[in-house]
Amino acid sequence: MSQNPSRLQPRLDRLNAALENGALDQVRRMLNRGLAPVDVAHLLESTPPREREVLWALVDPELQGDVLQYLNDDIQTVFLSRMDTQQLVSATERLDVDDLADLLQRLPNTVTLEVLASMEAQERQRLETVLAYPEDTAGGLMNTDALTIRPDITLDVVLRYLRRHERLPDTTDTLLVVTRDDKLIGSLPINRLLVSDPSMLVREVMDTDMVSIAAMTDESDVAKLFEKFDLVSAPVVGTDGHLLGRITIDDVVDVIRENAEHQVMSMAGLDDDEDTFAPVWRTSRRRAVWLGVNLITAFMAAAVIGLFEGTIQRVTALAVLMPIVASMGGIAGSQTLTVLIRGIALGHVSGSNVRWLLSRELIVSVLNGLLWALVIAAIAVVWFDDLTLGAIIAAAIVINLLIAALCGTLLPVALKKLDIDPALSGNVILTTVTDVIGFMAFLGLATLFYL
Amino acid sequence: MSQNPSRLQPRLDRLNAALENGALDQVRRMLNRGLAPVDVAHLLESTPPREREVLWALVDPELQGDVLQYLNDDIQTVFLSRMDTQQLVSATERLDVDDLADLLQRLPNTVTLEVLASMEAQERQRLETVLAYPEDTAGGLMNTDALTIRPDITLDVVLRYLRRHERLPDTTDTLLVVTRDDKLIGSLPINRLLVSDPSMLVREVMDTDMVSIAAMTDESDVAKLFEKFDLVSAPVVGTDGHLLGRITIDDVVDVIRENAEHQVMSMAGLDDDEDTFAPVWRTSRRRAVWLGVNLITAFMAAAVIGLFEGTIQRVTALAVLMPIVASMGGIAGSQTLTVLIRGIALGHVSGSNVRWLLSRELIVSVLNGLLWALVIAAIAVVWFDDLTLGAIIAAAIVINLLIAALCGTLLPVALKKLDIDPALSGNVILTTVTDVIGFMAFLGLATLFYL
Repeated sequence: MSQNPSRLQPRLDRLNAALENGALDQVRRMLNRGLAPVDVAHLLESTPPREREVLWALVDPELQGDVLQYLNDDIQTVFLSRMDTQQLVSATERLDVDDLADLLQRLPNTVTLEVLASMEAQERQRLETVLAYPEDTAGGLMNTDALTIRPDITLDVVLRYLRRHERLPDTTDTLLVVTRDDKLIGSLPINRLLVSDPSMLVREVMDTDMVSIAAMTDESDVAKLFEKFDLVSAPVVGTDGHLLGRITIDDVVDVIRENAEHQVMSMAGLDDDEDTFAPVWRTSRRRAVWLGVNLITAFMAAAVIGLFEGTIQRVTALAVLMPIVASMGGIAGSQTLTVLIRGIALGHVSGSNVRWLLSRELIVSVLNGLLWALVIAAIAVVWFDDLTLGAIIAAAIVINLLIAALCGTLLPVALKKLDIDPALSGNVILTTVTDVIGFMAFLGLATLFYL
Repeated sequence: MSQNPSRLQPRLDRLNAALENGALDQVRRMLNRGLAPVDVAHLLESTPPREREVLWALVDPELQGDVLQYLNDDIQTVFLSRMDTQQLVSATERLDVDDLADLLQRLPNTVTLEVLASMEAQERQRLETVLAYPEDTAGGLMNTDALTIRPDITLDVVLRYLRRHERLPDTTDTLLVVTRDDKLIGSLPINRLLVSDPSMLVREVMDTDMVSIAAMTDESDVAKLFEKFDLVSAPVVGTDGHLLGRITIDDVVDVIRENAEHQVMSMAGLDDDEDTFAPVWRTSRRRAVWLGVNLITAFMAAAVIGLFEGTIQRVTALAVLMPIVASMGGIAGSQTLTVLIRGIALGHVSGSNVRWLLSRELIVSVLNGLLWALVIAAIAVVWFDDLTLGAIIAAAIVINLLIAALCGTLLPVALKKLDIDPALSGNVILTTVTDVIGFMAFLGLATLFYL
């Protein structure tokens, strides 16, 4: 009875073996009856493209929608683009409105309209409510399955109303109290319903200061609210206070996971929707762009070195040591940058304390700059038997670490103000600065002293 | 009624103004009545050390425990280390068992024992259950407030039993069905209780294949289970199947958030518990270590360059261009590394598909290597009017990108096997390899062709 993620592995291994042996009937059986849709999705995500195609063709059409919603965007898009409207309709008819909305947003407009046209009026209307909001807002994240009640009935009536249901919507921890024209005026946690006197009125028991979320709220702010108030679900309201739907914690967990992945992936110039097994051609194209961006910064650093070719020719030790100056600056700067990016994301960093952070980073860079400058200078002096060289590299290290601290602190703040994602571009810009300044300081000082 | 994280800011601004004006009584009032404990914690985390001390002293002692549990580990440790047992007991008496256990694990053993001795027997026993497990396991994450019922009573009895409570534990979505000797045999979702016939027995309605989590399960596996099954809470059982407690989604969300932060922070050699406003001295010491590690790798690269001083003296253009070779390798390698680390974390990468990934990465590196080798060679030829130089740098780029792909794929797989965190050490090792190979290939080929 005890569940463990590793229990899946033996079944996947058996499935892979069956696939390799070409026992497709067996594979089909395992896919459609042996595994939950979320596991089938995981299996597809863990499979190189060619085998993935074979597996996908073996999934029953009416299960494909269930599986699709768990796949990452990259793979979803590939599969969706190949289905015709009829297949789409049959694959998606059992999905929740929010999941269906997410899928539809990846389709061409004409296909979306066809799918909408094939739906029942009520279902279509619900879907259109969700589709009216961008995918990354509370409105795009919400579901329309909220249970609503009126304020002037007794809890006993509520209990009887609930009992009329076959089952309650997943993750229902709260009933939403609305007026006759659907204005949200309160919430009744199910756990309070269970411990209260059944003869009381909803109005007497309900929460009126519950968290409610405006439909245009950004999804990362939605996640912050859920975390702060330990929410399991929350109602979404329009600008006029009308109830539009509700967001549940499982969708918020996905948001948190995706945002976290986004930061890690974008630091390497990658897309967080990226399929681990994306084919060669797509991978090459995407990566080429990032290499190109970095090549520009590398040529800028090279141009700086180019200014000092004469000096290098006279003192080749400079060429040996110069990457150390650039590298220490880059590492120190990326530490500052990372702390600042996290601080901004957590809401710790505001106008009033940036100055404190900047002075701390500058002091830290002086302390660490002096420490490592001494170490590096000592090694350089011993290595090349040249005191001047030691003094020059020490000075260059301190200068570059100071610039790294300055840039690492102010750059993310500035990027944030300009609404540019600091995780994506911060490190590239920072490294350019520490490379250019590092080579400039080291080779420039050397030119002064040696020529 | 609509909540928004930005609503907090005006209150924080007023509080900061009061603090600057020295209106401490007003600050005290705002801290203890105007703000929720989670907001006070956020305020403390957003404040430099000196003001933080002033603010903390103004928080009422009986509120301090509530605030402490929301603070990050770094700050918690500082505050906890200064409280005496009496203060600790009064600050922590209103905490949940899991939060209390987390706090106690940061205290010296003698203090923990004193706090335990001051507790009531039942409470102490619960706490000891949680303390028996490492903090990062299901056992350390669980709470002991699960509501349990017996299988052979009717739902009507269950409903009456619930009504006897003043309130139910937070995030109770399920009642756990246990035998007389506390063996977990099923679960009864509250939402099923509400829609079922009250005359039925628990045994007839309960789930017997619910997810239950072994106490020693790693917290990141717990998170995977919650995500996979969209759980709100889950029971934790001992090896003998006895119910020990339950984990709720709010604690799992914290785990997900912390794991995500861990990856980003450790890539810069930082600790995810790091206080954004850590004082100069602590910050310098921690950062110095990472700079030292990177210095070793920088000197290794320098040593490689040192082997070719003679060549550089004859062709200084090599010094100008060599950082480009190293940098392109580093960027390409970190892309591969990031994709692999994520693939491993998501469970996509297993023995059988590493070979596919490796060949894709190698092909991609050849394609991108050829593309950018041509571009770089063209620029080099025009810049230095030297065809040989173009050929040499083109070859070096292709070689380094191949090595980057090889290392970026196999390194995280190997580190994972050795149980070393690839996020922390992966990039350092990779960059060392691409620097060393980059310089070696470029300068080595140059030595062959020019000397």
